[in-house]
Amino acid sequence: MNRITRALSSALLALLCGAALAVDPILVVGHKNPDTDAITAAIAVAHLKSQLGVPAIAIAQGQPNPETRFVLDTFKLQMPTVQTSVAGRQVYLVDHSDYPQAPDDIKQAEIVGLVDHHKLGGLTTDKPIEAIVMPVGCSATIIAKMYADADITIPKSIAGGMLSAILSDTVIFKSPTTTASDKAVATKLAVIAGVDDVKAFGIKMFQAKSEFSGPPKDLLKRDLKTFNMNGTKVAVAQLETVDLTMLTARKADLFKAMSELKAEGYHSVILMLTDIMKEGTDLMVTSDNSPLIEAALSTKLQDNSIWVDGMMSRKKQVIPNLEKAFK
Amino acid sequence: MNRITRALSSALLALLCGAALAVDPILVVGHKNPDTDAITAAIAVAHLKSQLGVPAIAIAQGQPNPETRFVLDTFKLQMPTVQTSVAGRQVYLVDHSDYPQAPDDIKQAEIVGLVDHHKLGGLTTDKPIEAIVMPVGCSATIIAKMYADADITIPKSIAGGMLSAILSDTVIFKSPTTTASDKAVATKLAVIAGVDDVKAFGIKMFQAKSEFSGPPKDLLKRDLKTFNMNGTKVAVAQLETVDLTMLTARKADLFKAMSELKAEGYHSVILMLTDIMKEGTDLMVTSDNSPLIEAALSTKLQDNSIWVDGMMSRKKQVIPNLEKAFK
Repeated sequence: MNRITRALSSALLALLCGAALAVDPILVVGHKNPDTDAITAAIAVAHLKSQLGVPAIAIAQGQPNPETRFVLDTFKLQMPTVQTSVAGRQVYLVDHSDYPQAPDDIKQAEIVGLVDHHKLGGLTTDKPIEAIVMPVGCSATIIAKMYADADITIPKSIAGGMLSAILSDTVIFKSPTTTASDKAVATKLAVIAGVDDVKAFGIKMFQAKSEFSGPPKDLLKRDLKTFNMNGTKVAVAQLETVDLTMLTARKADLFKAMSELKAEGYHSVILMLTDIMKEGTDLMVTSDNSPLIEAALSTKLQDNSIWVDGMMSRKKQVIPNLEKAFK
Repeated sequence: MNRITRALSSALLALLCGAALAVDPILVVGHKNPDTDAITAAIAVAHLKSQLGVPAIAIAQGQPNPETRFVLDTFKLQMPTVQTSVAGRQVYLVDHSDYPQAPDDIKQAEIVGLVDHHKLGGLTTDKPIEAIVMPVGCSATIIAKMYADADITIPKSIAGGMLSAILSDTVIFKSPTTTASDKAVATKLAVIAGVDDVKAFGIKMFQAKSEFSGPPKDLLKRDLKTFNMNGTKVAVAQLETVDLTMLTARKADLFKAMSELKAEGYHSVILMLTDIMKEGTDLMVTSDNSPLIEAALSTKLQDNSIWVDGMMSRKKQVIPNLEKAFK
């Protein structure tokens, strides 16, 4: 009898332990309107954490853009499930560190980690967490270092995704956000991923990105970020191309889409049409206070737009100046 | 004439460059009511950044407590200048990541970096910065890794300060906040600092800390942190001792000081008298809603205080439960 009780206890204990272990995996998620860095960073961090014995899966807050689709296809990476609700779950944020870019119900979730390369966005947590933010060109650059620190090998496919993210975020090392670390990490990732000519691959990727069919509203929202600047709603979208003429014919349609978005309650809607070969941006603006935007960006609009030589980075050349102007 | 003009231009250029290089050093600062980690982390980060060619100096938001004085004396470290205003300067925060713990005029400064091991406190910046937060027992554990990553040797005196910070924050590895990293780093730092018996040194340090003379108000404020919990002001102080009886006689005085502080506009003032040898806390509470505090901390007060076995960590065992209760 005693033996049977003991056996039963053991079985019960095993069941209970099994149940206790079967916790929900951590959800690793990039920002809204995901780009290549947001999606591949989620894939990489989920892989790294799982390798370290912490169950984690990547999700995405939206469908991949044409560039990301090209990257996923090229390196045979699986697109994460699109999921916008994270209530009740443990969440690891990548490539953003502010509430507007996080899933809408993030405050009903527990943030357990964070990797980012943007400005700090005011997140709070109840407990100490792992949060690594570095002023580099791409989240993948930080994640590569985390792999190295943990002594985990980056799989070939994920290395390809991370390399693509660096090339995308740094506009093939041309953006002023590019650091020596980004270049060094990209070189290492290229070896793992089997990419011989990094620049040629980058241009091929940007060509995939320069696919501007579809409704203008979708184009505008493809890489649109919204900001609350001192109580004022501002949206800044960016489309990057290897040839600006591919977009010129669509400017009138795009401006209409901007005006429609503005009517949804924005003070300003800005669209950057960035030519990565010419290294500049055709800046389009619709605003309640255009002179303020012009002053902030040291430029003068002509018919709601202006070519700005050397303007490549929303994060480094546009947002900080707008933040200052709205203070 | 042409040669003279060139010579003058060169001299002018040298002067201008000199002027441009003579920028104000970054101020590295720990939290208000500085403890050993806040002060030695500031010293260490300022040293590390300077070694990396970024001029930086440590400051402190207050005088050292008896424990920190003992540490500075033991390892011949210079106490940073006490300075509470940072307006107009570049600031690197250590051992905190929230506005209430930062210098009062932090919003008139530029936060350029952050190292912390507490919960995220909602900081925002205009530009991407270096921010490294890890759920370990002490900021020094993270900073030791930064030294290793940068391939910079930690000087003997600073290693002693960092070791002390780990022993202080982890209560000689007894606090539930202690991680394997803290222990591993402490072992390495002890070798550099020439500390043979880490535990014996730790007890000596805590004996220095267990010096409880002076006005009760000063004792209460020695390691007091204030929190805004969902709009409610809560203060939680902690005094650690190797022998609780050293404090028992002062409990009535301390409670009076707590009540006076509460009258300054706090919903609750909590004081943890933590006995690190017995591994528990004599918890003292004055609150507008004592049952809420009791429920949050799963305890029942008797005459405004109660011994809680195993309660050692304000950060891990008290603050998260209060945050939850005030939600």
